Formats: sequence, C-alpha cells, structure tokens
Amino acid sequence: MAAAAFAPPSSSLRLRFLSFYPIRPILPHSKPPIFPPFLPRPFPPSAPPRRSFCTVVAAALHSGGAAERTKPEISEKWKDRVGEFRKKLKVADIKGGPDEGLDRLGQTLVVTGWVRTLRVQSSVTFIEVNDGSCLSNMQCVMGSDAEGYDQVESGSITTGASVWVQGVVATSQGSKQKVELKVKKIVMIGKSDPSYPIQKKRVSREFLRTKAHLRPRTNTFGAVARVRNALAYATHNFFQENGFVWVSSPIITGSDCEGAGEQFCVTTLIPSSNEVSDSPIDGIPKKEDGRVDWSQDFFGKPAFLTVSGQLNAETYATALSDVYTFGPTFRAENSNTSRHLAEFWMIEPELAFADLNDDMACATAYLQYVVRHVLDNCKEDMDFFNTWIEKGIIDRLTDVAEKDFVQLTYTDAVELLLKTKKKFEFPVKWGCDLQSEHERYLTEEAFSGCPVIVRDYPKEIKAFYMRQNDDGKTVAAMDMLVPRVGELIGGSQREERLEYLEDRLDELKLNKEAYWWYLDLRRYGSVPHAGFGLGFERLVQFATGIENIRDVIPFPRTPGSSEF
Amino acid sequence: MAAAAFAPPSSSLRLRFLSFYPIRPILPHSKPPIFPPFLPRPFPPSAPPRRSFCTVVAAALHSGGAAERTKPEISEKWKDRVGEFRKKLKVADIKGGPDEGLDRLGQTLVVTGWVRTLRVQSSVTFIEVNDGSCLSNMQCVMGSDAEGYDQVESGSITTGASVWVQGVVATSQGSKQKVELKVKKIVMIGKSDPSYPIQKKRVSREFLRTKAHLRPRTNTFGAVARVRNALAYATHNFFQENGFVWVSSPIITGSDCEGAGEQFCVTTLIPSSNEVSDSPIDGIPKKEDGRVDWSQDFFGKPAFLTVSGQLNAETYATALSDVYTFGPTFRAENSNTSRHLAEFWMIEPELAFADLNDDMACATAYLQYVVRHVLDNCKEDMDFFNTWIEKGIIDRLTDVAEKDFVQLTYTDAVELLLKTKKKFEFPVKWGCDLQSEHERYLTEEAFSGCPVIVRDYPKEIKAFYMRQNDDGKTVAAMDMLVPRVGELIGGSQREERLEYLEDRLDELKLNKEAYWWYLDLRRYGSVPHAGFGLGFERLVQFATGIENIRDVIPFPRTPGSSEF
Repeated sequence: MAAAAFAPPSSSLRLRFLSFYPIRPILPHSKPPIFPPFLPRPFPPSAPPRRSFCTVVAAALHSGGAAERTKPEISEKWKDRVGEFRKKLKVADIKGGPDEGLDRLGQTLVVTGWVRTLRVQSSVTFIEVNDGSCLSNMQCVMGSDAEGYDQVESGSITTGASVWVQGVVATSQGSKQKVELKVKKIVMIGKSDPSYPIQKKRVSREFLRTKAHLRPRTNTFGAVARVRNALAYATHNFFQENGFVWVSSPIITGSDCEGAGEQFCVTTLIPSSNEVSDSPIDGIPKKEDGRVDWSQDFFGKPAFLTVSGQLNAETYATALSDVYTFGPTFRAENSNTSRHLAEFWMIEPELAFADLNDDMACATAYLQYVVRHVLDNCKEDMDFFNTWIEKGIIDRLTDVAEKDFVQLTYTDAVELLLKTKKKFEFPVKWGCDLQSEHERYLTEEAFSGCPVIVRDYPKEIKAFYMRQNDDGKTVAAMDMLVPRVGELIGGSQREERLEYLEDRLDELKLNKEAYWWYLDLRRYGSVPHAGFGLGFERLVQFATGIENIRDVIPFPRTPGSSEF
Repeated sequence: MAAAAFAPPSSSLRLRFLSFYPIRPILPHSKPPIFPPFLPRPFPPSAPPRRSFCTVVAAALHSGGAAERTKPEISEKWKDRVGEFRKKLKVADIKGGPDEGLDRLGQTLVVTGWVRTLRVQSSVTFIEVNDGSCLSNMQCVMGSDAEGYDQVESGSITTGASVWVQGVVATSQGSKQKVELKVKKIVMIGKSDPSYPIQKKRVSREFLRTKAHLRPRTNTFGAVARVRNALAYATHNFFQENGFVWVSSPIITGSDCEGAGEQFCVTTLIPSSNEVSDSPIDGIPKKEDGRVDWSQDFFGKPAFLTVSGQLNAETYATALSDVYTFGPTFRAENSNTSRHLAEFWMIEPELAFADLNDDMACATAYLQYVVRHVLDNCKEDMDFFNTWIEKGIIDRLTDVAEKDFVQLTYTDAVELLLKTKKKFEFPVKWGCDLQSEHERYLTEEAFSGCPVIVRDYPKEIKAFYMRQNDDGKTVAAMDMLVPRVGELIGGSQREERLEYLEDRLDELKLNKEAYWWYLDLRRYGSVPHAGFGLGFERLVQFATGIENIRDVIPFPRTPGSSEF
C-alpha cells in the first residue's frame, strides 16, 4: 500500500507522516530529536520507534488540481518523520509497582526531572531526582567515572536544575527505597540560578503562596496536585459509571441564581488594559441620566460570573435524567479567611425522578467513592499527609469510606445542640442557620467523626428553589457535614410544583420574568428532581488535611490577589 | 453491633442512617418515598433495598456532654431511614445491550421519562417515552385495560408530559425496535402545557437557540449532549491513562497571555445589579485625574477573564512533567460567526521534556483516541448524525481514527498552495497567516480528508512564547487542520532558553516585569517542553457535523447574548 511513499525524492516538498497505530516496524530516528541534543531518544530504551505510511501519500503530493494528479513528489527529508506517541517512563512507573522497582534490577533506564538534593561524598555522589509523577525521588548514585561527572564537580548541577540521567537499576543500600539508579551518564538540561527560592531548608506555606509558579516542585504541593487530580478523575468516573452526563453550565450569565450582590461583573465597557493608567471614567458609555449604558456592553446588558450552575443543570436533568457539572464558580465576597476563595470549582449533580432521599444517598455514595479512590490510588501521598500535615487523616478517611453516614432533621439537630452542655459562641435557636462551630460539633463530637447529614431546614434560611415540605415551615434541603471542614455538600430536592415555586418567588420579591425559562421546566413535563453542590477545594482540603484553602488550588484568587 | 439501634424509642430525636456498603438485608421501605407518591420504589423491581446500621449510633444519641453519656434515645421514625444509592435503570440499559432488550423479554420494568409522541388507535395506544439516556424512545403499548388509561383518554397525557410507566417487555411488531413495553400501569407525573414549543413538527435550530432550556429534549440536541459528554470523558481518560495530571488554570487573571484587547474585564467597581437602572457612572471610584481607581477594585488592579491557561499550565508541567487543563476560556471578540463563541472550553496539555515532534504525536494520538471512543460508544447517536446532519461523517471519522496524519512545514504548505490551480479569495504568500480556505484546501483536497499538521510557521505570525527554530525566521509551532472545521488544534514547543525569550519579549515591546514568574521557569531548571490547545466546541462540531458552534454548547455566549 505504501509503495508511493518509497518513491525516490524528487521535490523540495518536505512531507512527513504521523502514525499512532503502527503497521510495520521502521528504523529508529536517524536524526536525533531536539532534546536532548546529542542523545538518542530516551523512552523506552528497549523499544525502537515504529512507523507506518498510508495510502494518503499518493493523494497528498499533487502539485496541481484534482484534474492533473501526477506522480507524487517526495522529499529527501523523509527521515524527519515524527514518532508515535508513547507514555513516558516516569519515576512512579519504576518505583510505584508492587516490587518498588526490584522487578527492573539490571535494566538501563533514563530518568528526567529536577534535582531535589545533591550530596557529594568522598567516593560517591547522591543526586535525588524528582519528576513530579510521585512523591519519591529517584536516588541517583554516581561515581567519578560516570559520564558528565564534571558537571557535578564544577558545581553546575545544583538544587532545582533539570537533568537527564541514564543508569542501571540497582538494589539500594539505603532504608528509604528498594532501588536506586547507578549513573552511567548525566546531562544537565537547565541550570538553576543560585537565587532559586526553594532550597532544602523548609519554607513556609505563606511564603510559597508568593511563589505559586514554583511551589508544585515541593513535596506538599506536588502531593496536593496529585490528590486533587485523583479526586477530579474519581468524580468523573463516579458519575459516568452511574449514567450521568457532564454538562458545562455557563460561566458568564445574565441570570442570578441565589441573589445578587456577591457577583463579579463581566464587561467590555471599561477601556481597561494592563496599563492601569489607561482607563478614563469618561470612556465608559453613559446615558443622559448619568447611568451606565449597558446596551453598549458586549452582551447588551449586565453580565456576571456564575455563582452556581444548578439552574442550568436542571434544564439538562429534565431532558437527560441525570447530569452533573464540574466547573468554576465565583463569589465576590470580601472574605479573607482560610475557607473562602473568589474563584473555586464546583461539582453539581442533578438527578431527575429523584427525591431528597435519593439525593442524600447519591451524595453519600459519591463521597465514599472518591475517598476510597484516593486511599487506594494515592497511598504514598496520603502517607505523607498522615505524617506531616494531619496525623490520623488516613483513619479519618477510612471511617468516611466505610462507616454509615448519620442523618437527622434540622429540628432534631437544634434539639441536640440545645441539650449539649458544650458552650458555643453563637447561641442555637430554631430558625437560625447553623454556624461552623455547631456543624463541627455535630460531626466531630456528637457523632464521633462520622459525616452527618442535616435535612429539612427552615425555609427562611434556604434558597427559593428548594421544595417545600408538608409542614409548610421547612424545605427538603440537606447539608452534609464532615469533620474539620464542616459543610462539604449542600443539596435539596427542587420545587417541581409551578404554583409553589411562583408563590415563593413572589414572597421573596424576586423577578418572575427573569426566571421564565426556569419556570418553563415546571410547565412542561415537570418531574421531582434533586441535586447537590460540592466545593471541590473543600473536598481537597478534607482529603489532604491542608488547612488553608489557598493551598489546595494552583492559583488562588482572593481579595487583592490575582497574581499569576 | 447495632443492638442499640433497635432499642425502644424514647425520644423525639429522629435519627436516620445512610449506608452505601450494606452489611445486612433489611425490609424494604415501609414509608413510600415522595416520588411517585403512591407507588413502590421503581428501580430495580427485583432487588429490595438493603440497609445497615453502624456503631456510631451509640455515640450519636447522647443528650448530654461526653461525661454524661446515657442510654441512646431512638425515635420511632427509624423506618424513615434513607436507601443506598443505585444506578437507575434507563432506556439505554434496556435497549442498549447486544440483544437490544430481547434478553429482558417477560420482565416487568418501570420506565420514567418524557412523552415524545402519542398515537391513539382504535384498540391500542402507542406512547413513545424518552429519558435522554439514548436517542431511542421506549415504545409503550397500551390497551384500554391498563391502569391509568383514563389519563390518556382524557387527553391529559400529551407530548412533553413526564410519565411513570410500568409494563412487561415484549417483542415489538414494529421494525424500528426489537422490544416494546406492554403497559400495565401509567402515571402522569407532570403535564405539559399546550404551549409546549417542541411539538412533533420540525423546528429550526435557530428557533431552538431561543429555547436553550428545552432543546436538549430534541433528538439532535440530546445526541449532541451525549457525544459532547463522551468526548469530555474520553479526553480525561486519554490523559489520565498517559500519566498527565489535570490542572485547573485560573479563570480570573491579572496576566495576559497572548496580548490584550480581546479580554473581558472582571470587576466589582460598577455598582451593577440585575436592575439595569441601578448603575450610576458617578458610583465608580475614580482618581483625581478622572481615571478609574483600580486600587478599589476587588483584586486591587484590573482583572480579566483568561484567554488561555497555557502559561499557568507550564508552571505545573515544569514540576509534574505532564499536565493538562480542561476549562473555560473567553474572547471578547465581536465575531458573529458560526465558528466563534465568547465563552468556550479549552483543553491544553503541556508536556515537559518534550519537543515539537512529541507534541504532534500527542495531538494525533489524542484526536484518534477520542474519535475512536465516540465511534465505539455512541453508535446510535453517530448513526443519527450520519443520516440527518452530515452524510458520511462516520466514514470521515473512521478515516481520522485509522489513517496516518500528514505533516508538512508552513513553507512547503505555501509552496503547495501556490502550485495548485485552485483560486482562493485571499492570496497566499510566505509570511501571511493561512486563511480558513487554505487550511480546508490542504486537509480536504490536497490530502483527501486526512488531518494535516502544518509546522514551523514564520515567527511574526505566532505568539512570543514559541521556540525559535535554527533558521531564525520560523518557530516550532504546529496547527492541526481537519476537514470541515479547519484548524482544530494549535500548539508549539515553548521557548525554554531564557535569553531568547527575553529578546522576543523586548522585540514585541511586551512588559518583561509582568512575565517575571513565566521567566522564572527558564531561570530554574528549564526544560524543553511543548503543548497544544484544542477548542472543545470545535471538536464537538468535528465529531457531530453540527455546523453552528452555538449548537454544540448548552448555553452559547455571543455578542448580545447571555440569556439563560
């Protein structure tokens, strides 16, 4: 089939072909790749690249139109063709297996990464190389006979430098690891300026927030990034396995879900740029009465950053049955606390033909699933958190994955809080929202660390869309409380009865016209439905023990802070 | 263990327990759930709910503090406890198997969903019920003896109504499906007002854009939502299987990736609300010189919606090796075309220790993976698109999944375009950006429908961060062109050499201070790295054949349009 591909070169057209599903083995690269500039392609050393050619070659090489197809012209640079994509061999692949690398003894491998530490001893040098695939470094042991040792000697390989290391897997003498790499050759890829701020000495997490672009190179933030990733992927897996469809709810919206006042405005009216001085007030379009002329804005009216994708998710749930969102949401709250971000990710499942019991069961199953996933798949990182961040976190999470969750009504929770002898800063009274101290008492003390779902809250303290219970005073809302974090999940059955919903909008003096499409869902084939929302960063805090929410998102946005 | 749980009730505290991993079987619900109000729990009919209790009960029921733990008090409402979470039985589960439902002949099942059509014949009524889990409806066949038939007779069950249907799976006489449901009982859950805009007659996609909250109830938009979901999940699977870490790049940013001018401003300075009239210009804080006082804004300086997460992703790639983002990005471009959205989702992988060849190989492997996933997992929806939206789309996608991709340099592409006799609206010249007509010619005609990667573009038409080639004139950039869509993926190797990058910033008169953290990546252990960006909605267009990008995202945002 590929005869044409091997015709002699006859043109300067340099055509190359990619292939992912190779058909026949071809010789390895004859031209070395850009990186490293003088070495054969490192991964994996045993398998030569395989390539193939396809029939499209014939059609590809016309110099004229379709009517004049002539003999293909092929360049002498055929050999420049690109390789297939292969998973990189990483430290996690080498040391992460059941044998912790012992299965690879004697193999010659290449590791690339960044130098964490370097210890020069009389006869031997230890270089700890980390590639971010796992917490563990690859310990590289180097004698003075290794190629590239002069770079160690000259002091050009330092903490933070990037290196390419080729060596043989050997049993390690150290107690920290089963295997190490006996270095045959080392190449410094990128040096590290002596000003590198993450040296071996401990640096505070406050300081590292000012170095958010480098902090993933530390043990803590690398582990957080991996556990965060595991939680995100487990989230998708849970919902996909259960037949939910991921829906992208809009980020910019003219609607307002839970009441305005905390929303960011999105506009092109202000002629701003990164040059702060370039924004004259006079440049903002205004009407005769001195008010902003929103008709000239990008969307022709005020637009905001979403605070929740729920109402939009409901439109898809009442068409596809079960859906979930997973996207960013925003609050323009001026809260400088360890629990608040202006920008955070939310997971909002919505279940059709479901009531509050289904909702609670789903939230419970979801949390247990993702916690179990992290315990099973992030052992090394979790051991690290257990040792350095929160002692006992593995037991705490194991309890969550295995124990039954407790549920009780708001009314009962208030009764329980009134009965306890514990003193609270805020008094408890039926009708008031529960404070963090109450929530944490319930889950941490009253129920000994078991997650607690409080349900059936007074309607006055909950959103308009929650379904009214038969008592006329409470709504089918639920909050899941977990140790250390407090409220992790909030959900409700939605009011599916048109007349109840309209009455509630009227009671709260909300503009019914603005909700026309939301009300339509109750007008045309309304169904009982329910859902919940989960702040993803709270979940990462819960699963890692990290106290400040700014340390569980790569680039936190808070009042006064939009750097990076 | 749960002895305390069965102690006689002695308090009004109503406590219930959730369980996902049941330990012992318990009797089914004694209190019917809210939905449907008068029927036993429908799913699955054969398996009774199982529950369990846990030891936490004992700790849970104190009325006093820890020092006074007394006998647990348990409510008489034990029976209200909540069930475990179970995957719903959906139409896709029934009809989607290899036997298309024949394996369930004789089973009594419950289907819930929305009525698509209803045909009343003399002796029998056909109701097509869709639950959004697949394109297929469940055909429900009903005699006048079925319970609830009066609701059909009275005309209260109409198109758009939601229903609960219990029946026996039977062989279908029709040619469209293997099985149908012989109805024993039907319950109308929510009626559909006669104004329901999606009746059986065809409605245009333009009209449906004004009904974005209801359009997922149509065949086309339901199929788009499912394929979109499949592409998103396949995206996560591809990267996770290859060891990439998902990173959430920030949405609000003080940085500017590719040059300002097309960014939305995010602010709390304008005292806007949904009441448009409430925004006096005088309310905007200003300085003495009449310019906006950004120091009073939420972030203390101008902030924007991100146009790309790439620079942020690079910080994590140079710590974790391989990462990807999947999140919303924004353009404040006033483009009212079928290819542009103000808000769209982007996938941006970033590979460390990688060059442009790795990048192209990754992009190719990625596209082939997700296309293969959709062909394998969305057969029914793809048949629908093949029949109704774009004839031949399945062949086109199969080619993409199986054929080799073509690559050629920009210089060669220009030469090829100059040689062809085809007339273009825009003339071709080395140094100019390729227009859509050129791109589509390359992939659709010159290479017969094969995706084409054009690489090594003139540096003047590409972004500052792309790696300069040795010729000094071009950069290691690549664009992947696909039939119908044109450019689907754009990527590059990044400039990892500090001096080259600084020179380029200077040449382009960009503010080096603003890029301090980006430059730091080259200062401390710089590595060759590369990545690409993919507009997710373009991918959905490519995979479904849908022509207008507004029809492949649930709630499109375009100039003048932020409804829903």
